[in-house]
Amino acid sequence: MPRIDPDRLQELLKGINGFGRDPETGGFNRVGYSEADMAVRDWFADQMARDGLAVRRDAVGNVFGRFGPVDGPAILVGSHLDTVPQGGAFDGALGVAVALECVRALRDAKVSPARAIEVVATAEEEGRFGGMLGSQALAGLAGADWVAQAHDADGVALTDAMRAQGLDPAAADSAALPPGHAAAFLELHIEQGPVLEAAGIPAGLVTAVSGCSVLQVTLEGQANHSGTTPMEMRADAFAGLAQVGARIPSLIADHGTDQSRITIGKVALSPDEVHTVPGRAVFSVVLRDTDEEVMRGLRAELEAAIAGATTANGLTAAVEDRSWIAPVALDAGLRDVLARAAARCGHVAMAMPSGAGHDAQTMQTLCPSALVFVPSRGGISHAPGEWTDWPDVLRGVEVMLAALAELVSVT
Amino acid sequence: MPRIDPDRLQELLKGINGFGRDPETGGFNRVGYSEADMAVRDWFADQMARDGLAVRRDAVGNVFGRFGPVDGPAILVGSHLDTVPQGGAFDGALGVAVALECVRALRDAKVSPARAIEVVATAEEEGRFGGMLGSQALAGLAGADWVAQAHDADGVALTDAMRAQGLDPAAADSAALPPGHAAAFLELHIEQGPVLEAAGIPAGLVTAVSGCSVLQVTLEGQANHSGTTPMEMRADAFAGLAQVGARIPSLIADHGTDQSRITIGKVALSPDEVHTVPGRAVFSVVLRDTDEEVMRGLRAELEAAIAGATTANGLTAAVEDRSWIAPVALDAGLRDVLARAAARCGHVAMAMPSGAGHDAQTMQTLCPSALVFVPSRGGISHAPGEWTDWPDVLRGVEVMLAALAELVSVT
Repeated sequence: MPRIDPDRLQELLKGINGFGRDPETGGFNRVGYSEADMAVRDWFADQMARDGLAVRRDAVGNVFGRFGPVDGPAILVGSHLDTVPQGGAFDGALGVAVALECVRALRDAKVSPARAIEVVATAEEEGRFGGMLGSQALAGLAGADWVAQAHDADGVALTDAMRAQGLDPAAADSAALPPGHAAAFLELHIEQGPVLEAAGIPAGLVTAVSGCSVLQVTLEGQANHSGTTPMEMRADAFAGLAQVGARIPSLIADHGTDQSRITIGKVALSPDEVHTVPGRAVFSVVLRDTDEEVMRGLRAELEAAIAGATTANGLTAAVEDRSWIAPVALDAGLRDVLARAAARCGHVAMAMPSGAGHDAQTMQTLCPSALVFVPSRGGISHAPGEWTDWPDVLRGVEVMLAALAELVSVT
Repeated sequence: MPRIDPDRLQELLKGINGFGRDPETGGFNRVGYSEADMAVRDWFADQMARDGLAVRRDAVGNVFGRFGPVDGPAILVGSHLDTVPQGGAFDGALGVAVALECVRALRDAKVSPARAIEVVATAEEEGRFGGMLGSQALAGLAGADWVAQAHDADGVALTDAMRAQGLDPAAADSAALPPGHAAAFLELHIEQGPVLEAAGIPAGLVTAVSGCSVLQVTLEGQANHSGTTPMEMRADAFAGLAQVGARIPSLIADHGTDQSRITIGKVALSPDEVHTVPGRAVFSVVLRDTDEEVMRGLRAELEAAIAGATTANGLTAAVEDRSWIAPVALDAGLRDVLARAAARCGHVAMAMPSGAGHDAQTMQTLCPSALVFVPSRGGISHAPGEWTDWPDVLRGVEVMLAALAELVSVT
């Protein structure tokens, strides 16, 4: 029976996190197509080559290491190596390290897989350029045309960023995996939320990735002196915003599900002065659910709530759709494989949705895909404080290994 | 009968507004103890001297011009010459110009007043240094000790600002008017609100100046990923703020009066990111009423609303009292004089409270004081768009002149 080597896995994760570490904050900076991001890919490719995997890289920077039969469909397993600015040690990196450790464990156990495994370290998952370029390119969803129009928040063109790292943006289409190449995709990732920790369950098997609608709402009223303007003569943009915000719990209760999330995260009042009635409020709304119909319903009810708040407060409203990402149901068959694997390992696993986006949702458009969560302490992520206890990591890895062992033996 | 000379008044206001005008914005910058503020005082003192008034200046920069008997109590009439940054053409300046025009009209009509009139142009009313220094010094409420501790928002010490203009901060106590000097204080000011315009009434006779309580509230929760954190596991500081904001209308309906105003004008979320549940919200609350008991009741109910919102959202709250200014009832007898004067002039006047602070409320602690409002177009103030139609100005001035004529004939 193949067995995980905890020390070797820890050493591998430490090796990845030798790149981009900020000693002042303890955070990691391997932003897509940065020097540190490219350097860690070189290093990781080298690790896989030393293990005897057949290494290749594609036009957008995805790195692959193939184990087992040279030809035929492969089980892809991995995650991403890039981070957000000042990100944590686990987001993406853990899933990549786990993928290689599983292969090492199979190799050491002299397993001769009937089907190949490809460890994959995807590129630019964190969306510096507004997408999940690595997996989208693999799935044929982002090619040269998409690359040509993408910029980061500082206005840097993706084409320039790629060229600076020796990648040819015009060749992006070639990253699309040929039909039949990928038999399945498995990803292990930290939950980035508090659910598993609170439930005391070591592994989550993701049923679906929530869709995500981002709105920017502008309420326009009239800035006025807070002392001289009677309440009934105001057009107070903050009062409108507060009314919308206070409506959210009942809106979800009436029209949402337990998977619904509505968040107002960013607010700018104008003039934003203590003694002045706010004349304008610009705020973000992020709306998520695992059911697109529910999302549409909540979107409509939210718009009605905004309309009600504007009427009540003498405001005008502009609601701008910034993005709409549909929910993605992951593969149920593959989730069953993982559930059986968890049972064999004696680990409790729970089915759960993912509120955050992951490569697995993109890969699902290409091949059956599955996503395993391990707990995030305190739900903290995208920050230096991100942490998963090592015993929790190991339980998740054992589930992945057991599932992979089953999948590669099937012909 | 003395008569206002509209052209002369307009010319005088134009003369004052020759100082500190920003040609780019059309706004006025005569911030307390700035070069422009001191220069306009020199110019205005010179205008009064040319009119034969006995001019004097005090230790904090208030400027006086006395007309009539050299000895005995005087009717003080005036307003302030300083402005907020990028202020309008009327706030303060109009009341000063009107005071001198009334004296000129009395002089031209060969009125020989039984009681002196002192035109007064107060200093630093707009609160660059956190008070209304000019009138507070006259009333003996701010002397050298107060001056020694005051700083502006940029950290400039009031003592330094005064010394730079040749004023001796240590002499501030000497600005206090001796007992019996002021028989009354009259001020004409723009309303800075929409009430008179909406009512179609040219003059407001102020009954009381609202008290003002300024709070800073901090709600602390937990910043979290907007997708991975279920609604029921959040500690969303914005959700708490929205609940407090949405409670304001019913809070006033249940515990306030038609003079109550509660304003949330300034809001800072942290981290203030689209995809993150806000972990902290810091916001201002300004609470006003003309009745201090009502203010206390609203203050308590607001605190209860904050406590309710924190409990409901898993937050902690810190409520910091930044200032508490009690309401001031102006002199009813003097208001009657003004009401009779309005009736004699054939102008409709309405009794109303003032939601903004004015020199008259400070002077009321020294002598019977009254405040006449003229309409502000659109309620706009503290901005270049501040405007009062000239016919409205003239109706207000006629009321002031008629009242003054009555007051100075009384012995």
